Amino acid sequence: MLEEKSPQRTPLSELGEFGLIKHITSDIPLYNDTVEGVGDDCAVIDARDEQTLVSTDMLVEGVHFDLSYVPLTHLGYKAAVVNFSDIYAMNGQATQLVVSLAVSSRFPVEAIEELYRGLRHACERFHVDLVGGDTTSSTSGLILSLTVIGKAKKEKIVKRSGAKPSDLIVVSGDLGGAYMGLQILEREKSVFIDNPDVQPDLQGNEYILERQLKPEARQDVVKILEELDVVPTSMIDISDGLSSEILHICEASKRGCRIFEEKIPIDPTVYTACEEFNLNTTTVALNGGEDYELLFTIALEDFDKIKGNPNLTVIGHITEDENRYLVTRDNNAIELTAQGWNPIKGEE
Amino acid sequence: MLEEKSPQRTPLSELGEFGLIKHITSDIPLYNDTVEGVGDDCAVIDARDEQTLVSTDMLVEGVHFDLSYVPLTHLGYKAAVVNFSDIYAMNGQATQLVVSLAVSSRFPVEAIEELYRGLRHACERFHVDLVGGDTTSSTSGLILSLTVIGKAKKEKIVKRSGAKPSDLIVVSGDLGGAYMGLQILEREKSVFIDNPDVQPDLQGNEYILERQLKPEARQDVVKILEELDVVPTSMIDISDGLSSEILHICEASKRGCRIFEEKIPIDPTVYTACEEFNLNTTTVALNGGEDYELLFTIALEDFDKIKGNPNLTVIGHITEDENRYLVTRDNNAIELTAQGWNPIKGEE
Repeated sequence: MLEEKSPQRTPLSELGEFGLIKHITSDIPLYNDTVEGVGDDCAVIDARDEQTLVSTDMLVEGVHFDLSYVPLTHLGYKAAVVNFSDIYAMNGQATQLVVSLAVSSRFPVEAIEELYRGLRHACERFHVDLVGGDTTSSTSGLILSLTVIGKAKKEKIVKRSGAKPSDLIVVSGDLGGAYMGLQILEREKSVFIDNPDVQPDLQGNEYILERQLKPEARQDVVKILEELDVVPTSMIDISDGLSSEILHICEASKRGCRIFEEKIPIDPTVYTACEEFNLNTTTVALNGGEDYELLFTIALEDFDKIKGNPNLTVIGHITEDENRYLVTRDNNAIELTAQGWNPIKGEE
Repeated sequence: MLEEKSPQRTPLSELGEFGLIKHITSDIPLYNDTVEGVGDDCAVIDARDEQTLVSTDMLVEGVHFDLSYVPLTHLGYKAAVVNFSDIYAMNGQATQLVVSLAVSSRFPVEAIEELYRGLRHACERFHVDLVGGDTTSSTSGLILSLTVIGKAKKEKIVKRSGAKPSDLIVVSGDLGGAYMGLQILEREKSVFIDNPDVQPDLQGNEYILERQLKPEARQDVVKILEELDVVPTSMIDISDGLSSEILHICEASKRGCRIFEEKIPIDPTVYTACEEFNLNTTTVALNGGEDYELLFTIALEDFDKIKGNPNLTVIGHITEDENRYLVTRDNNAIELTAQGWNPIKGEE
């Protein structure tokens, strides 16, 4: 499908490495304390009096993305946004991005342009400076490596390890959408492989498809918390699913948790899609991943500040012990595990 | 050859992603202003009053390295050092490193350990904090992406663009060794392929093999310049060969240069190897690459400060116009090009 979308095909060899870098990095706008962007041995950042945050991500074709249904612009956008999300998960602001690409000769220059269009769109939307990178050839497929730099005042930085007993567990947005979007895309891909004349049936699933293809990092939640004067006690972004992430918080904080199934925020279209695929919505929300919502804990006395905010849902609380439970609708406590959950005991 | 060197083979799947990360990042020592290293969404760095430098590199198996003759420990060491070199090329100090890996199932855990041994050795030697990364599977081979962070006082940062007419062009160490080391390794590889019983003949070539397999970044030159109270007007590290790098400086500075063939520092073993392979030493020094020496320009009045320093050689000067010449031993001026040089005119 890639070919159809790239009618112009300039071979990468025509530009050469330096030519390609110049071509894709010209006129990059800067929004932050970047002194020098692309073009020297290093980017230069004026650090001032805040602390610097750094995070990195690697995406491999055939492992993390499938170009048969992910347009390159979306891939670039998502790769950037997912990386920014790690900075927001520390309660910081993403400020600079470096991007490395390895591309096989199967990709024409226009494909790399498309990818950069997505990267630059994300940088523009989140006001992040694209300050450098490396571009090289690969023996097979496309590999992307992104490193994001951010900043925060020392006293505002939120780690995974600060959750205290009786803290409330809060999640932004809703969960499970990105996973169900992926199910739709994979179904339509196999339909397409069986019969290339059938048009993909994506009607009514726009929300969950967008959750999968063009997720948004919750920079707005960091701003909301600032406005509400709430500094979470711990925070993480949801890339691998609620279950895996709350376990990270509990492990880092050496505490337990109780999550209430009925409180987990799920969009109506996720319910519909789960029914269609015969999947349990709670399983999907717990283990689906890629929603890039923020999961955090706040002190009980901060509850009044966040109460009623439509972006935030309290789904449970931190416990003194190290037991991590999901309390089901029928009031069973079930142990949370990273890959799902194991029933361990009956009604309490 | 990889298999012979890794008698223990624990499949990656046995540890899982989180297990592997924990395994390879335990007990990482910190030398710099790192507040949080590996283990949260981001690393945290206390920036203080200096400017931050960022650079990134991607290395792909089969494109940048050949594991049939590069031991993984050396690969890790070199990948790190090459990245630090970009920070030194801005006259800064490398302080933090993030490393992402994509590995196919062909690599056992022990192979990744070896790679990390090299990375950590480099970090120890250059006092850089390994603060994070991402580890994922690849569909083919090994891909490494490194991002290094450094710092420097604003007034000490040296860019490519500051060279002025009459500035002296200076190079550290000697050139061409890494390229000739590669020639030896490739020759011995083809001998080995033809006849696996023949022992590789590496005798007498230790220096150039080390230049290829275990290069050192010139952190010491940055220190020497500090001690001599010299701030170069422009600087770059030599990764693609002297010719390509001096052209980068000239282009960024919008100036020309005259490099004198007879001044280019070349080790005696490079002469010997060039004879053996029937190669011209000047061609090798100009275009060989991977020496990771520093190439910089200084104001003429700083000459007395660097004169006689055994680490530094003056090889030419910057000119007002934009002509970039190599002046040969027989006094011909030849235009420098990135891929070699084109004779453009006869004797002057």
